[in-house]
Amino acid sequence: MITPTLPTGFRDMDADAFASRAYIIEILEKRFIQYGFQPLATPAMEKLTTLLGKYGEEGDQLLFKVLNSGDYTDELQPVDTTLPAAQFTEKISKKGLRYDLTVPLARYVVQNKHKLVFPFKRYQIQPVWRGERPQQGRYREFYQCDVDIVGSGDLFHEASLLVMSYEALMALGITDFVIYLNHRQLLSALATHLGFGQSQMALYQTLDKKDKIGKAAVEKLLIKQGLSKEGVILLGQLFDQATNPFDECQRLDSLLAGSTLAATAIKELTRILDYIAHFNEAIIPKIVLDSTLARGMAYYTGAIFEVKVPNSGVGSIVGGGRYDDLTAIFGLKEMPGVGLSFGLARIYDIMKARQSFPPHLGHTTQILLVPMAQEMEEIAINHLTTLHKAGIAAELYPAGERMKKSFAYADKKHIPWVAIIGAEEVASGQLSLKNMQTGHQVPCTCENLLTTLKGGK
Amino acid sequence: MITPTLPTGFRDMDADAFASRAYIIEILEKRFIQYGFQPLATPAMEKLTTLLGKYGEEGDQLLFKVLNSGDYTDELQPVDTTLPAAQFTEKISKKGLRYDLTVPLARYVVQNKHKLVFPFKRYQIQPVWRGERPQQGRYREFYQCDVDIVGSGDLFHEASLLVMSYEALMALGITDFVIYLNHRQLLSALATHLGFGQSQMALYQTLDKKDKIGKAAVEKLLIKQGLSKEGVILLGQLFDQATNPFDECQRLDSLLAGSTLAATAIKELTRILDYIAHFNEAIIPKIVLDSTLARGMAYYTGAIFEVKVPNSGVGSIVGGGRYDDLTAIFGLKEMPGVGLSFGLARIYDIMKARQSFPPHLGHTTQILLVPMAQEMEEIAINHLTTLHKAGIAAELYPAGERMKKSFAYADKKHIPWVAIIGAEEVASGQLSLKNMQTGHQVPCTCENLLTTLKGGK
Repeated sequence: MITPTLPTGFRDMDADAFASRAYIIEILEKRFIQYGFQPLATPAMEKLTTLLGKYGEEGDQLLFKVLNSGDYTDELQPVDTTLPAAQFTEKISKKGLRYDLTVPLARYVVQNKHKLVFPFKRYQIQPVWRGERPQQGRYREFYQCDVDIVGSGDLFHEASLLVMSYEALMALGITDFVIYLNHRQLLSALATHLGFGQSQMALYQTLDKKDKIGKAAVEKLLIKQGLSKEGVILLGQLFDQATNPFDECQRLDSLLAGSTLAATAIKELTRILDYIAHFNEAIIPKIVLDSTLARGMAYYTGAIFEVKVPNSGVGSIVGGGRYDDLTAIFGLKEMPGVGLSFGLARIYDIMKARQSFPPHLGHTTQILLVPMAQEMEEIAINHLTTLHKAGIAAELYPAGERMKKSFAYADKKHIPWVAIIGAEEVASGQLSLKNMQTGHQVPCTCENLLTTLKGGK
Repeated sequence: MITPTLPTGFRDMDADAFASRAYIIEILEKRFIQYGFQPLATPAMEKLTTLLGKYGEEGDQLLFKVLNSGDYTDELQPVDTTLPAAQFTEKISKKGLRYDLTVPLARYVVQNKHKLVFPFKRYQIQPVWRGERPQQGRYREFYQCDVDIVGSGDLFHEASLLVMSYEALMALGITDFVIYLNHRQLLSALATHLGFGQSQMALYQTLDKKDKIGKAAVEKLLIKQGLSKEGVILLGQLFDQATNPFDECQRLDSLLAGSTLAATAIKELTRILDYIAHFNEAIIPKIVLDSTLARGMAYYTGAIFEVKVPNSGVGSIVGGGRYDDLTAIFGLKEMPGVGLSFGLARIYDIMKARQSFPPHLGHTTQILLVPMAQEMEEIAINHLTTLHKAGIAAELYPAGERMKKSFAYADKKHIPWVAIIGAEEVASGQLSLKNMQTGHQVPCTCENLLTTLKGGK
């Protein structure tokens, strides 16, 4: 029989990976709750009518579709097999798997608009599925972690989301990050100034490559796309930001003087920065007001932001912005919102590379009790319950198993202590306690055992 | 535009439901870890070759199948549409959604047998999906919570699983449960004694209805199926258990004297009970050795158990048993295991009906700060950061919103305190603090605020 395997692009999460993820999530969740966010979980499946057309043509293709139940082929006609895949799918599938957490949020808000309290502040940490071509480090199932405030246009929320992100990342031990801040209307004004008024998305897409190909290459590309000499000069000025984001606001105000769009955007950004400074002035030096920051998603309408760790080799670890019409896709207008998404996998990668997870994370069992024969099992169970009552994770290796293997078991499971209970130990009323790291073995009373283990934690 | 809805049989989990589930899971997980279990998460999708044929014919139909990606219709022939659904599915789907946590465990163990340490002790809490006909209280997505020990036949593990379940349920505040214990080989011996040696599964299925239809109705059904007069007498004796499970072991030993199968099973059950008594004698009175307990799953080979709460109106809240050949479905022999499953939804139902969740679960925000105008926002933010630093979940209701709505917001979100910051409060250096439950409003300094909130928690 062939050993079973997983479908390409999927993976199991073992105890170590699970513990690392849980560590990150616990720290994030604590901040979310402190700021008044509440959890939401939506089901894995949504109607295809909810999902299709929300992620562009490529997204529609990458959506995992679920076959209808029962005798779903009954109404198929032979001629149907000549249909294009998308049309054929309509006949056999009505449900798809969650592709992100944003569309389910929009669906949830519209569906529950009468019972929700606004601004609706929710966080959501769940897997999503995308049929991407599998490649190194890219999976078809991965976790997203979204935080959104829906139903308020107040700029205080942008600030509180950024402050919360700052605090969460600091708590995770990631301290060398930079918060890039921009505004869609500033980008729009900039497009006009650079002569891309009619082709804004093309400009944004090229600007988006800045991190990958560098500023010079972006300039070259834009010249090809028609950037004028004056444009080149302005672009150079825009790339050359002031260190302080308040200064940059003022600089941009004069650089883009005359643009109402730019003036409004700069006013909003200044307001957001003011709020942040009220929260904690130490955050301001971590903010770069980058007027050339362009986030991909089409639905942003106001401030946009990204958090990056320079020289980490990974892309942005937080990204988000204001969207003023998210629920409009489901017919609910005037429902402004702002949100951001933590890149759990990228945060994990950085912390893993820097070994900044606490040591022994996921190595939960503290001690393995090994009775040498069946008649010592009763004593071993007494020890076990004492340890459990003291809140210590402890296991018993039954005498029926081969005792020799118990050390290998403890070793592989990273259990720091092994206590042997043999005839000698029973006679002396003690245990023989082995420190698995040093190999040192000493007799130990039960009371000393608790002290040793609690001190060793 | 039509308001979007969820597919039938699916539901969102709001903050309250989420918090209740998290509460149960946290208590269970703490016990699992204390007993040396480690978490495992498997992906939502498995290959259909892994899933099909493992859950019977009905299960194969209820499995959710996922359409192949890309141009999956390319190789379809018109004549294919005349195929039965199952055969047609083979041509367009290779993946299915997790149907339970047992088959993924077996797959994982076989796939990772060289790197795992045995006995492999894992717990897994994840949703599963089944295309059941939707009905009241039955969903197509629900959480399972499994705990298994794979790679050891030692009976100590049966005992430790039952003791762990006892402790977990007590910690959840469910104290009036009964643990029903039986053994597949005892059932088998019983089948022979009752004249069902050739139709054991039929006997088990009828016995399984005992809770639903009562003992008398089961007896009637079995008489129809050929139960003899002697059989009726024996069945009556089996139904009439001794209160103490050790006594019942002895009683069964004489009732089924002569059966080697029964003798072995009773010896094993006695051993398990001995272990449990060593752990905690208080558990013994909660155990009923019920030789007529028959759990549905075909793969059990040894001890089987169920935990029920009499008169709760819900079925068993824990169920499990020993299986000696689980991984054989994937070609790996001699991998005995024992495991159990907590019925999260049923535990939730019981706790909900008894109002045994802690009060205010999920009502996390403790205070809402309401600056009356923009110039008071800075002071409000100062208070907010002070509260956050003290570990208190606090929100600020921006002055840009309609202040009148802030009380409704606090009320709907069950926030117990609202602090108003107006011109008067700024002048006096105090807040105006309103207790949302009593409606009482008093001036309060910032230091007193922390004391009041911490005392109020």
